[in-house]
Parts: sequence; structure tokens; C-alpha cells
Amino acid sequence: MDLPVDADRLRADIEANAAFGRVEFDDPEKRGRTNRTGSEANRAARDRLVERFADAGLDVAVDAVGNLFGTWTPDSADPDAAPVVSGSHLDSVPEGGIFDGPLGVYAALESVRAMQDAGVEPDRPIGVVSFTEEEGGTFGNGLLGSAVATGELDVEEALQLTRSVGTGDDDAPDGETLGAALDRIGYRGDDAIDPASWDAFYELHVEQDTTLESAGADAGVVTTITGITHCEVTIEGEANHAGATAMGDRTDALAAASEFVLDVEAAANEVAASDSPSAVGTVGSLSVSPNATNVVPGRVEAGVDVRDVKAESMETIVEAAGESLARLERERGVVTDLERPFDVAPTPMSERLRAAAHDAADAAGRQAIDLHSGAAHDAMRVARVTDASLLFAPSRDGISHNPREWTDWADCAAATEVLAGAIARVAGVDE
Amino acid sequence: MDLPVDADRLRADIEANAAFGRVEFDDPEKRGRTNRTGSEANRAARDRLVERFADAGLDVAVDAVGNLFGTWTPDSADPDAAPVVSGSHLDSVPEGGIFDGPLGVYAALESVRAMQDAGVEPDRPIGVVSFTEEEGGTFGNGLLGSAVATGELDVEEALQLTRSVGTGDDDAPDGETLGAALDRIGYRGDDAIDPASWDAFYELHVEQDTTLESAGADAGVVTTITGITHCEVTIEGEANHAGATAMGDRTDALAAASEFVLDVEAAANEVAASDSPSAVGTVGSLSVSPNATNVVPGRVEAGVDVRDVKAESMETIVEAAGESLARLERERGVVTDLERPFDVAPTPMSERLRAAAHDAADAAGRQAIDLHSGAAHDAMRVARVTDASLLFAPSRDGISHNPREWTDWADCAAATEVLAGAIARVAGVDE
Repeated sequence: MDLPVDADRLRADIEANAAFGRVEFDDPEKRGRTNRTGSEANRAARDRLVERFADAGLDVAVDAVGNLFGTWTPDSADPDAAPVVSGSHLDSVPEGGIFDGPLGVYAALESVRAMQDAGVEPDRPIGVVSFTEEEGGTFGNGLLGSAVATGELDVEEALQLTRSVGTGDDDAPDGETLGAALDRIGYRGDDAIDPASWDAFYELHVEQDTTLESAGADAGVVTTITGITHCEVTIEGEANHAGATAMGDRTDALAAASEFVLDVEAAANEVAASDSPSAVGTVGSLSVSPNATNVVPGRVEAGVDVRDVKAESMETIVEAAGESLARLERERGVVTDLERPFDVAPTPMSERLRAAAHDAADAAGRQAIDLHSGAAHDAMRVARVTDASLLFAPSRDGISHNPREWTDWADCAAATEVLAGAIARVAGVDE
Repeated sequence: MDLPVDADRLRADIEANAAFGRVEFDDPEKRGRTNRTGSEANRAARDRLVERFADAGLDVAVDAVGNLFGTWTPDSADPDAAPVVSGSHLDSVPEGGIFDGPLGVYAALESVRAMQDAGVEPDRPIGVVSFTEEEGGTFGNGLLGSAVATGELDVEEALQLTRSVGTGDDDAPDGETLGAALDRIGYRGDDAIDPASWDAFYELHVEQDTTLESAGADAGVVTTITGITHCEVTIEGEANHAGATAMGDRTDALAAASEFVLDVEAAANEVAASDSPSAVGTVGSLSVSPNATNVVPGRVEAGVDVRDVKAESMETIVEAAGESLARLERERGVVTDLERPFDVAPTPMSERLRAAAHDAADAAGRQAIDLHSGAAHDAMRVARVTDASLLFAPSRDGISHNPREWTDWADCAAATEVLAGAIARVAGVDE
């Protein structure tokens, strides 16, 4: 079975998608985009994907939270057979890169087109999916579309989520619900998209780390996706005049929060050094109130992200965060709170699908290696209800969630070749 | 000379003014307002002051940056004599209190009304002034109106200042110039307001500290206003995926900034403990980019405020801030920058006016004590061009720049009585 992918066609798709929400930089090494769920850029990216589905002869479905699904049902396939599906997401973090998400969506579509061009005859329909709000931060904490599709999150609850403050623009106002945002951009559908009815799911994504680059490998086959916990922390001190309040009379929420940030970093460093090298702990967001140079900070809200392939080491870092807050209450007189709104255990990937990916790489003369994923992906949600596999393409310098994110076009094509071969194998194409 | 002030009339003015930009709280101890220059709330507060000037028979003037001036020229006064002026400001910090600024403006107006009611005969005109954008943070770094009036800041330069990001509302957009904002609210005037032509300036303000409360005094007579430096600090790391970037591979701008915040606090604590108890250093504002829980922070901007009555101790704290940044560059690989856009030396107050204030307190049976001011006030600017004096009313628990800011109405009236007596003495009213 020979399944050459069209590298130029894939590149053209990814570059066209990169124009939606493009962030301009003078530095030619930077190619950024901000594509938040419900923005005009998000609507445009969706419109183009639907058009490209139609160009390739796929039937298009849209579900209640805006997940997009294209189905190719070739004559060789039993239309009632459980499909083999692949895809990822189109949304981005603010000023993110152009590959994180779109590579997986358009590589899945390219795999279908490669099978069509090669005239292979799968037994099963092939699906291409784009999940809504994978990144989180605009509506909820991430993996939203796949959480709803797999029944992890109630659809009505998801539609009532409100846009985070400061993530809107003129067209996408603060406080808008997800339901209203999807209505506004025309992507609140009524089709059913149910991963439990799929035979298999493959997601190709950029690695966002340097393992493949260091090994000189073409593709990564993920063994386990790390668990993830998000903690929302509040530290209340007392806002006061920065000039008239003596040093000894202050309850400075930002000074307390600064100790907290360093305590989380120290705990993660210690666990990574002693127990589990993949463990990470990050205070990624921090908002100060009232945030004026001449006012002692009265309140800080911070967002903490903790991940590892080992559940125990995650707990160690979260416990250290809690101990830090307790100490700050005692020593600095602040009042603190820690909520844990998002908590997912480490997720092993399907051995059947991993084996098919390795077979496809061998057949294509591509080098694929096993590794773990430190990032959450929709494959993590889908793995709860059917066989799922996550494949990686190399990331230059491991940089991601950043306009410097980069994967060479040849590397995009090579990894897509592995993806296409794996999909074809699982869909019963004869070798 | 007996100059009773009407405590109810003064209270009614301050409470009416507090309605403009009111921030509601369930807690009855909190009375907040956000009155930023150029907002609709700011327009309304100005409209009412102009109305109250007219009610008291004052001639009203508005200068190019929106400073408001009301003049009472009684028959007893030489209309060409240099006036005795008093006032403060109407703008507030975000979620500030109701006394910081408005007490000084309405106490000055009440002093005029008290003199009118008592039928005293000053030799000089009496002026009431309200300076634009005293707090800073919306347009520039503070004391804007008094800086322009005293020639410290060029009027055209001031009018070209743009609104800080995130300080606007629907009517007051981000990026608007001060000139456009004043045009929009109808307060870009063409009268001249020149403190160098004044005989004397008194500003009554809430203390924002606990010295008067602890001493049980009715009023404070400021000896020196502390110097103030603002530093704008930038710390650049590298934004990256919070899950996929190992702890050892990070350049986390927020972790570095957290060390910086604690270094500034430690330096100020040390100087306050060993050298000058009035020294303070504050990181009051901090903005993280991209500020998403799942992204390692790439960039932090921080605003630092340093003050003292001794210039040397201010320099010690600023130097410690610079050394902290140099260390973080070496140890964490961040790139840093420190600008110092605002720097004012400590300012002594006029002995003639201080003596008149003490005489007025004695005559009224009020206890006035000497103290320093840790906060900047417009009196600091005015002191560059004529005799100036800053008086304080007690602040409950020293709290200010906060909805819990409070001064009992009786304390407002008592301090206003001292102010009125001082103004009358300096204006040549016979004792």
C-alpha cells in the first residue's frame, strides 16, 4: 500500500488557516495567530474547513457545541460500520502558533484525500473531526468540545459557560455565553457527533517538546498522556495607599502571591529532579487588583497548571501549593482559597492503534518512536469511550503556544504519511 | 474670629459627589467609587462642582487640561490682589474611597461659604481649585493638572497623553488622548489658572495613615511631602506550553518577576527598619503575558512606587531593584528593563502657612499636630511656585485607595474648620 500525501496541498491548507486571527510580527521567525472560540477569526477558520470538507466530498455535520465532522464513505465501505476518525482543533491560545491544532485537522483531511488519490478501498467510513475550544481560557478550562462529545460535560452546562473577562473583542463581548457565541458565528448545530460510536480515533499534533527533534525521528507515538490539574487560587490582602501605608502596616496580596509562585516552582523542580522528570507545575496566569502602581495590591487571582504521567507526583505538587497558602495565611495575614475545577488522571493510549502507527511508519520508511505527552489533547477525552492514539510531529526547539512555534513543511508531510497509513490499516485497507 | 462650618452642607456635597462612579458593595462598611478622568462619572462630578461654585457666587474658570477654578471676590478684597487658594481633586483610583480628593475640594468651598455666612472681610480674593488627574494611571503618572498649571509639564504634551489600556469604558475608549477625552466631556477650557500668581495654597486631604487617629488629633499640619519615584519594569522570558516544557527548559517571566517583587519588598523593609521609618517600596501593578493558565509566562510588566522624606533612602531602594533585575538576568536568563518616568524629590511645606494653620486650630479649640506626608499631593507641585501647605483629616485605620476609606463626618467638619480659619488668617481677616 503506497499512500503519498500531497505536501503542498497540506501546506496550503495550514497557511490559509493561519491567516484567520493572524498576529503580525516584524521578526520573520514569528508566525502568530489568536483564534479564540466565537471570534470572527474562529468563524472564518470554520467556514474554510467546511468548504474544504465539501471539496473532498465529505458529508458535514455540526453538533450543539460547534464540533465539526466530515465523513467520507467510499463505495468499498459499509456505511453502517463504525468509522475510523482523525482530527484535532482549530482554536488557539492568545498569540499562539499556526500548527497547534490545525496540523491535526488538515492532516486528517489530507489523509482522506491521499486515500482517495491512491484509490484504496477502506471497509469503514473515515471521519475528520475538529473539536471546539480545545485550548480553554475563553470558555472553560480546555478540551470542551471533546468533553461534551464523550459525555464528560453536559451540553447545556457547556452552552451556559460565559466568556472569560478580557477575551472578547467588539464582536465577541465579555460575559457572552458559549451558546450565544456559537449562534452568532453560525456554528451551533443539531447533529450528533458521538466518539463512542467510532472504531478508532487518531490525533496528530505538534510535539511541543524536543524529544523527536533530538532523536531525529519523523513521528512520535504517544504511550501515555499526562494527567492535568488546574487550580484557581485567590489571595486576599488589603488594598491601601502605596505612599501612606508604612511597610509594617501592609497586607500586600502581590507579595504573598509572589511567594506562592516561587513555592509552586520549587515544588515542581523538586519532584522533577527526584521522582518523575516529566512532572511540571506552572503559575501561568496572575491578575492583580486594583493593579495601580500607587496602590498596595489588595487581591490576586492565579491559575496553576500541574501535570505528570504519575498521579502521585501531581498530588505532591498540589499539596505543596496548599501548604504554601496555609503558610502565607499564618505569616502574612492574607486570606486564601484554592479551587480545583479541572482534574484529569494520566491516560494510556490504545495498543492496537499504536501498533498500526508503527507499522505504517515502517512501511513508509519513516522513523517513529514512543514517547509520552505532557500536554492534554482531545485524544485524552476520546480515550474514555473508544480506542484512541496520539501521534506527534517534531516541533522546532520544542516551542509552542508562541509565535515561534514551527514544524518544517517536510516534517508535517512525513508525519501525515504515518497518520494516513495508520488510518488506512485500521480501516481495513489491504497492505 | 468665629468661622463655624456647616457640617451637614459639607457632608451633603461629599455624598452627592460619591454617587458619580459609585461601586456597590453588600458590606455597609464599604463605600467605593471609580472616577477616572474623562469618564461619564468624571463629567458628572465636574458638572456638580461647577453648579455648587455658582450657588456660592463664585466665578468659574476652566483651563486647557480641565483644571476647575472658582473665585470669590468679596467687596472687602482688592480684586487684583494675589488670591488665597485651596482645593484638591475629584478623580479617584479604581475602586477608591469617597474622601480622597473630594474632601479637599468641598472643604475649600465650605470654607468660602463659612466666611460668607460669618460676614468676614478678607483683603484678597479666595479661590477654590480642583486639579485634573491627580491620581494618575489613566493619563500619565499623577499630579497632571497641577503639573501643567505650575509649568512642570507642557500643556500640549499633556493633551497628547493617551489613555492607559484597560482604563476606558464604552464612552471612554482605550488609546484616546487626554485632549479628546476633555473635549468629549466638555472640560477642555481656555482660561488661565496660574498658581505662581497665588499668594498661598492650602490643600486639605485625608491622612491615609494612622498618625492622627493614634494621637486623637483633629488635624495634621504637614512638614514635608515625601519624594516619589515610579519605575516601569519589564521582564522578558519565553512563553511556552505549560505541559510540554520540562521544568529545566523554562525561562518563566512570572517566576522571575515574583523574585523581583520580593526583593523590592525586602529592600524597603530593610531601609524602613534601619534608616528611615517612612521609606516605602511597592510593586503595585503587574501584568502577565499571555496570562493563560496553560502557558509558561513570557513577559511581565510591573510598576514600582518608592517614597520617602529622605532622598538617599529612596535611592537605596531603587538601586536594590536594579540589582535584583541584574541578578535575575544572570540566574534566570530573562531580559529586563527599568525605566524611571516619574521622579520627584521630597518637598518641605511653607512655614508661614503652617503657622497660620496652627493658629487657626488653637483659636477653634482643635488639636493640630505636625507630621509628614507619605503620599504625593497637588500641594507638592504648587509648592514649586508659591507658598503651599498640606493639612490632613484623620483616616479610620489609615485605609485609603480602598472602599473602606473612612473619615467621620464630625472629623471632616473639624478639619475644615482649621482650614477655613487658616485661609481667613492668610487672606487678612482680622482676628
